[in-house]
Amino acid sequence: MSDQIFVAVIGSASADAEIAALAEEVGREIARRGAILVCGGRGGVMEAACRGAKAAGGTTVGILPGTDHREANAYVDIPIATGMGEARNVIVVRSADAVIAVSGGYGTLSEIGLALKMGRPVVGLSTWALGREGTLDSAILEAEAPEQAVELALARRRRT
Amino acid sequence: MSDQIFVAVIGSASADAEIAALAEEVGREIARRGAILVCGGRGGVMEAACRGAKAAGGTTVGILPGTDHREANAYVDIPIATGMGEARNVIVVRSADAVIAVSGGYGTLSEIGLALKMGRPVVGLSTWALGREGTLDSAILEAEAPEQAVELALARRRRT
Amino acid sequence: MSDQIFVAVIGSASADAEIAALAEEVGREIARRGAILVCGGRGGVMEAACRGAKAAGGTTVGILPGTDHREANAYVDIPIATGMGEARNVIVVRSADAVIAVSGGYGTLSEIGLALKMGRPVVGLSTWALGREGTLDSAILEAEAPEQAVELALARRRRT
Amino acid sequence: MSDQIFVAVIGSASADAEIAALAEEVGREIARRGAILVCGGRGGVMEAACRGAKAAGGTTVGILPGTDHREANAYVDIPIATGMGEARNVIVVRSADAVIAVSGGYGTLSEIGLALKMGRPVVGLSTWALGREGTLDSAILEAEAPEQAVELALARRRRT
Repeated sequence: MSDQIFVAVIGSASADAEIAALAEEVGREIARRGAILVCGGRGGVMEAACRGAKAAGGTTVGILPGTDHREANAYVDIPIATGMGEARNVIVVRSADAVIAVSGGYGTLSEIGLALKMGRPVVGLSTWALGREGTLDSAILEAEAPEQAVELALARRRRT
Repeated sequence: MSDQIFVAVIGSASADAEIAALAEEVGREIARRGAILVCGGRGGVMEAACRGAKAAGGTTVGILPGTDHREANAYVDIPIATGMGEARNVIVVRSADAVIAVSGGYGTLSEIGLALKMGRPVVGLSTWALGREGTLDSAILEAEAPEQAVELALARRRRT
Repeated sequence: MSDQIFVAVIGSASADAEIAALAEEVGREIARRGAILVCGGRGGVMEAACRGAKAAGGTTVGILPGTDHREANAYVDIPIATGMGEARNVIVVRSADAVIAVSGGYGTLSEIGLALKMGRPVVGLSTWALGREGTLDSAILEAEAPEQAVELALARRRRT
Repeated sequence: MSDQIFVAVIGSASADAEIAALAEEVGREIARRGAILVCGGRGGVMEAACRGAKAAGGTTVGILPGTDHREANAYVDIPIATGMGEARNVIVVRSADAVIAVSGGYGTLSEIGLALKMGRPVVGLSTWALGREGTLDSAILEAEAPEQAVELALARRRRT
């Protein structure tokens, strides 16, 4: 049984320079710590994170929504073409010991919900804030910087 | 091609009396308006909504996470056993013209994210509030009461 | 809990007149016997079976591979858009008490394999023959005509 | 974009010594040729193939049906826990350039059907024989030995 640690990075398929820089640094730090990066395999935050991980000699897995492995970004080592659209979000989150959300839109929000439902720790960098009945939900662990995000993710990791 | 309208009701598998009463009234109103109710097929909000729909002579579809159709609540007409766990959330949302969230936990949050990603209107009754970068996201259409929730859902419906 | 019986009809999305006539008669007989027809929701065998079921006053469910419910044939009452491609085959088979294969290509073959794996009875009309190590596998119950196929399916039905 | 070649090995979760030896040699040969082995991640044929691949210094990916990555066999490097049951078969096949079936039961038959439907070449070692209307279907490329199976798979590979 693999005793490797897997960390998922989730975020939008398009990202501005600032967000991409954050994601790249998250990917780099995941690789430096010896963990494997899992993501949705596309562009934006996913591509930046994979680029960072590869620059630091890491391994990257991309769980793709479509049927063609060539839709993976250039930094994915293991492209998994699911052909299942958004249902692949479930697999990204399920396959990881911890999840780091970098900014992100509604797809990322769905992955945050899934991760919290499955008991995976979720660390956020400039991502969603959640509230219920006038109270903030504090389930997302907020980080100030990429290194801290990865440190938190590894400290709280839990995959069952 | 079916020109029926499908409305999804999402919420927790356990619900207190107040939330169950809201869900039941939502289900009743969906049936009164002639729409078909889609849900995750389990207990709590899902069961209450189905009970309401059946009381008003409606039709109910339950997209189940497990492999056994008998895990459907007693008010599901068409149980669809997916055996796909949380990935069934994608199907619940995809199959509907509009989504009504009644309270709900992290699983419901994931369905809200999916619905907004897919362009389905989401109406909320005592459900999640979303924020980004210190600003409230107003994508969830808040309703004050079940009748208004169904009216909003039907007015904004969009399934593609 | 629904005590309805569900019978899946599987076969190709294109069918010649002879095969379509068989499928239509299967659909008609399913409805006559009071069972609900489940299928992949598309054309060919699926459409013919749904047309037959509707002609006899039955109810039809179409579990679609794509994201658009409008890809359902005109005789589907309950279109379920999964957006999961071939993975929807699993749901078609899982949701039924018995499976009737009418002719069919490789997609149908995959559904036959899934059904046998799940312990669902599979009745065949002009469909695949299976062999292993020089011996015919007799798991597919061969029928001579539509009425017999439906009778066999109902007699052996088993959904767990 | 990864230009790695992925070969899927499919077969039963339990295997006798003879079949396990075939699968192990297939795995070894896949690794020797520099391809990545994809499989369902469980025991039997899958475990034997992974063991062979690891013995030859290869990389192994296991697409698991359940929600727990610890259900992967001891020779899986990259366990992907889908939580989607048999629907994971679709991903195993989709992610590969070619498929090698070693013996196998009904689950394997479903994967053969899916692979042929998706246009992936399928090489068989002591596996299913298919017939339609009294004629043998020759879509499965029969191999006599593991080395030949891998050679055929690589020669015909096609992933789109």
